[in-house]
Amino acid sequence: MYKHILFATELNETKSYIEDKVTQLQQLTQAKLSVIHVVEPIPNAYYSGVYGVIPGLDSADSIGTTRVLEERAKEVLQSLVKRLNITEQDLHIPIGHTSGEILAFAEQENVDLIITGSHGLQGLQLLLGSTSNAILHGAKCDVLAVRFKD
Amino acid sequence: MYKHILFATELNETKSYIEDKVTQLQQLTQAKLSVIHVVEPIPNAYYSGVYGVIPGLDSADSIGTTRVLEERAKEVLQSLVKRLNITEQDLHIPIGHTSGEILAFAEQENVDLIITGSHGLQGLQLLLGSTSNAILHGAKCDVLAVRFKD
Repeated sequence: MYKHILFATELNETKSYIEDKVTQLQQLTQAKLSVIHVVEPIPNAYYSGVYGVIPGLDSADSIGTTRVLEERAKEVLQSLVKRLNITEQDLHIPIGHTSGEILAFAEQENVDLIITGSHGLQGLQLLLGSTSNAILHGAKCDVLAVRFKD
Repeated sequence: MYKHILFATELNETKSYIEDKVTQLQQLTQAKLSVIHVVEPIPNAYYSGVYGVIPGLDSADSIGTTRVLEERAKEVLQSLVKRLNITEQDLHIPIGHTSGEILAFAEQENVDLIITGSHGLQGLQLLLGSTSNAILHGAKCDVLAVRFKD
């Protein structure tokens, strides 16, 4: 029924309860499986001292830090690639806005099911669920929200 | 993987694109399948003339009209019961608030997957998606939002 499943994951979401669902659905449907994790760039404003958060850093550090986050994501997700039995080519780590990148990938690659945690992706949005809302309403395909187990 | 699937349907959502997904997932997982359609009672205010919408009707008509809606839902959903190959006992038509009734049923009956349209249930909420949001965030189980095909 599904031909291309996209698992949208957080770094800390590589937990058995969600991986199990992804694996089982992939096996039941024999779909191609892709994994996406979006690295959101840290706004320059944090570095240029506008918010006074990290004074003394400049925008070059922003780019550098984003690259560090990207490298770290690659590293952390290596074990997920192995557990899900996919190739590195099926792991995608774009830099950008989370829901936008997920929706763009899904459309380009003819994804017919996006699997995500039900309480949103990325830090604070975990509480707000705004990313899962954006995916739910923006997706041109089905969306499975896997309930976070406390 | 899923043991009890709940298909939350609108009356006009008995279309092949969503039924096909429900049937296929039920067959793949061999889960028990229940269907729920919630009839929202028409507020008394409409009848008592507060909004001047239907002057001359009173609250007894509200109860009567809700019963008519309930009967009509039963009638319309008979064909769905047959197509999904379930028994009448697996069709539930509670009266109340849509997402609240769906979430309550899911919890009571140990539903582990709710399947719904991705653009909400019940009339105007179709545009707002507020019901699918409420289900997504309130559910203690997984939620599959099936994308509406234009």
